[in-house]
Amino acid sequence: MPSDTRDRIVTATSELFRARGYHGTSLKHVTAASGAPIGSVYHFFPGGKVALAEAVITESGAAYRALFELIADAAPDPVAAVRDFFEGAADVLVETGYLDACPIGTVALEVASSDDTLRRATAAVFASWEEAVVERLVPAGLDRSAAAELATTVVAAIEGGFMLSRAAHSPEPMRTVGRTMCRLVEAALAAVRT
Amino acid sequence: MPSDTRDRIVTATSELFRARGYHGTSLKHVTAASGAPIGSVYHFFPGGKVALAEAVITESGAAYRALFELIADAAPDPVAAVRDFFEGAADVLVETGYLDACPIGTVALEVASSDDTLRRATAAVFASWEEAVVERLVPAGLDRSAAAELATTVVAAIEGGFMLSRAAHSPEPMRTVGRTMCRLVEAALAAVRT
Repeated sequence: MPSDTRDRIVTATSELFRARGYHGTSLKHVTAASGAPIGSVYHFFPGGKVALAEAVITESGAAYRALFELIADAAPDPVAAVRDFFEGAADVLVETGYLDACPIGTVALEVASSDDTLRRATAAVFASWEEAVVERLVPAGLDRSAAAELATTVVAAIEGGFMLSRAAHSPEPMRTVGRTMCRLVEAALAAVRT
Repeated sequence: MPSDTRDRIVTATSELFRARGYHGTSLKHVTAASGAPIGSVYHFFPGGKVALAEAVITESGAAYRALFELIADAAPDPVAAVRDFFEGAADVLVETGYLDACPIGTVALEVASSDDTLRRATAAVFASWEEAVVERLVPAGLDRSAAAELATTVVAAIEGGFMLSRAAHSPEPMRTVGRTMCRLVEAALAAVRT
């Protein structure tokens, strides 16, 4: 079976999670949206819906980390990296009409108390994002524990920013939160430079 | 029909949203969990599931604002108010085994692209919470626009903190984010005092 069938299944599921959430998505929706027969879904994901959701979470998480790395590589310093990432997220929200850019936040809240495998998958994604931020802050002079505190705050702020901007249908909450995060990172770096 | 039936319906729906999300909750679940017949549900909520969800969002939002006001009234200053609110949220997460304390964040992400009435209801709740924070910061000396920026960040941070703590089954993300928010509010107030 061609592996682009697997990709189609994962992409369709990711889109369904954004529109309907994890609990609102059935394998029937997945076969209809992907055009893949149910046998294909079980061929690639013998564990069914949970296994498929785990793949969506892990693969989306890795794609968003890669996007952050790309933006950070192009930025002159960590403050600019944070600014560009939040501004980019605000722009994407406007361009897509406030569609969910990423299924992880929604699914994380839905499964936190109902499925331990998926809860752990979302926690691993958040930890990986925090690590990506830490890896930009430590070379800039922060010690690991200060960097880790800031990284947790930045990841929480981006998820909270998505929530407020999508609810308000406005990019302003995301831009506001991004400006505050820039000031925080700037202040932390200024403190170690003096 | 006694109005405690209405309360039972709203409370049961709020609990179902926390466990199963909006899309995963049907009126059949609501009648089973509340013990109220379907006729009662439509008596109190002629608009059905959307009207019921709107009541859950609006009433939970008001209850959480009241909780913040209570904590802030007992705190000596806005920094202590923010600290006590985040610490209280972290304690509740531990005590409840990381159950969703509040259905609004989960439902906000689920409905942002699928139901405009409910999206507006969640946006109104977030705006009301921001206003509650602004009302504590302005008397402490911040101008309204600085206070509003901080308030948006604090509300985003608490929602992001819930997400990371529930995913990790650890109070640490919430406590970390709370410490950072205290430092932010402290720095903003120190800047206007000098």
